[in-house]
Amino acid sequence: MTERVLTGDRVTGKLHLGHYVGSLKNRVALQEQYDTYVLLADVQALTTHFDKPDLIRSHLREVALDYLAIGINPDRATIFVQSMIPEIAELTVLFSMFVTVNVLRHNPTVKSESKHSGLDDMYYGFLGYPVSQAADITFCKASIVPVGDDQLPHLELARKIVRRFNELYKPVLVEPRALISEMPRLVGTDGNAKMSKSLGNSIELDSTTEEIAYKIKRATTDPARIRKNDPGHPDVCPIYAYHRAFRSSEVSEIREGCEKGTISCAACKALITSALEQLIEPTRERRAYYAARPDVVDDILLSGTRRARGIARETMEEVREAMSLDYFG
Amino acid sequence: MTERVLTGDRVTGKLHLGHYVGSLKNRVALQEQYDTYVLLADVQALTTHFDKPDLIRSHLREVALDYLAIGINPDRATIFVQSMIPEIAELTVLFSMFVTVNVLRHNPTVKSESKHSGLDDMYYGFLGYPVSQAADITFCKASIVPVGDDQLPHLELARKIVRRFNELYKPVLVEPRALISEMPRLVGTDGNAKMSKSLGNSIELDSTTEEIAYKIKRATTDPARIRKNDPGHPDVCPIYAYHRAFRSSEVSEIREGCEKGTISCAACKALITSALEQLIEPTRERRAYYAARPDVVDDILLSGTRRARGIARETMEEVREAMSLDYFG
Ligand code: SF4
Ligand code: SF4
Repeated sequence: MTERVLTGDRVTGKLHLGHYVGSLKNRVALQEQYDTYVLLADVQALTTHFDKPDLIRSHLREVALDYLAIGINPDRATIFVQSMIPEIAELTVLFSMFVTVNVLRHNPTVKSESKHSGLDDMYYGFLGYPVSQAADITFCKASIVPVGDDQLPHLELARKIVRRFNELYKPVLVEPRALISEMPRLVGTDGNAKMSKSLGNSIELDSTTEEIAYKIKRATTDPARIRKNDPGHPDVCPIYAYHRAFRSSEVSEIREGCEKGTISCAACKALITSALEQLIEPTRERRAYYAARPDVVDDILLSGTRRARGIARETMEEVREAMSLDYFG
Repeated sequence: MTERVLTGDRVTGKLHLGHYVGSLKNRVALQEQYDTYVLLADVQALTTHFDKPDLIRSHLREVALDYLAIGINPDRATIFVQSMIPEIAELTVLFSMFVTVNVLRHNPTVKSESKHSGLDDMYYGFLGYPVSQAADITFCKASIVPVGDDQLPHLELARKIVRRFNELYKPVLVEPRALISEMPRLVGTDGNAKMSKSLGNSIELDSTTEEIAYKIKRATTDPARIRKNDPGHPDVCPIYAYHRAFRSSEVSEIREGCEKGTISCAACKALITSALEQLIEPTRERRAYYAARPDVVDDILLSGTRRARGIARETMEEVREAMSLDYFG
């Protein structure tokens, strides 16, 4: 039987090149090999955006368009909406019975947040984020979860919860394993270690030709290079990082040209601009195609969600039986 | 329109006279006047009994039998199973987004527990107990919740959650009000302030004639009364508390007889024994009737749960719409 992969994103905005490098590219490859489930995590987006529900609604659609645009194939992959799978909420509530506050607050993501706001001021749902993530993974019995290094502790906790459940009741849940992607993080155009819309240093997957050119033009380079002949330090330059990520075959030429001062930053940027345009152009077109056909997108999301729901029901039946909650047979 | 009342019990064991006095008697009266919903709280029982699921299964049935035995009328009241209403879990997850850890840990029940085990060692689900209780109340839009004094803070928190939801999104949830019952607590046969099965000082609603007699015989009385002529102090005697609870019209005679030393403890106990037998006898018979007809009980619980589920679905639709989570109309 084909193994199932669970991936997905909190729907907090359009996706950008950082998402592409960190996960989307990998997902497009994974769908050829695995039964791929792609979660539109709207409930999880509520943990930080509960007061902006309209935003979540529009973001959900944007992210779905990004998925289809980038090449997630709805005939191969199941794209579904988290809030429409009540079984995820049911599992979240059941798992929360045997996970202590202690374990949750020491989860790195939760911990770094609690440094800012303190455990007390944290929202209860945010503290339980890893529990609901365990529910996301287990409801569909995914055995593989592609993650970046930074999310490994989350997955480890999900594995713990599964083991605990299987031990306490019956071994009906599947313990997921991590599939660590090679290059999980893309630097922002300002040189910040993380590309992020909220930092204003991102290049969105639906950027126009002009937007790409403009953002690359404005991007930081090695500040030590004033003139073309100055030797550059590609390792401090986001443009070099983009060459590595998107033009890997030509990357040694760039390093040499930069370090020896034989290529100008303008020329170096022109090369990456055209590479990005080549990458984004078909994406932009597919996106426009789907954006003009909201009914088609609705159908894709509804049928994906229906498929996910069918599996969710089966899993919940097994869970109820394992927990002796199947009172009426 | 008839107002809706929500009541119920965690299914952690057979019910006893303490439950009768504190809530059941009141419920039997309420069902004549209100649309009464009676929750068999099995998920909430998991917060403390997650490792004993088989026990919950059998307790659920015992409590259902107790309800029917005591006179909850399934034609008037809706008896339903919490774990079979996924919308309760969905609301719990949604509410958890905007309730802080701080608010939960200062809830008196949670607080007294955290004194024992510390916040860190507390289970996440236990910390969220008031959130799930708010979901229990709001899913069916109950406007009235009968509570004892000790549960008032729970209800206050549920009211807060409802107000917050209605403010953040749309006013679709009903803010419940407390209906404080007159005599919420019954002393145990050992004189302990609370009758409780786990303290071994309870008289169950299905007790046999012999069990009633035996438990009253063994019950504590005023230790200062050695002989009949010794003046007694009825206020320190559980037997007097039972006279007040179950023989209210004759209670002044008992006080006088005890204080003046004109009634013996044995005679005093005989009076309450026969009153309890009169109370429990029809209960015991109705219980035996239903216990012998598990299919009838199944039907009652299934049809009650179905009715509750219908209302739950309607509420969730409104909640989704209010939160802009109704993506596909
Ligand atoms: S040549 Fe390219 S890699 Fe070197 S500093 Fe300029 S933009 Fe960066
Ligand atoms: S006479 Fe009745 S009320 Fe008084 S001490 Fe004896 S048992 Fe208690």
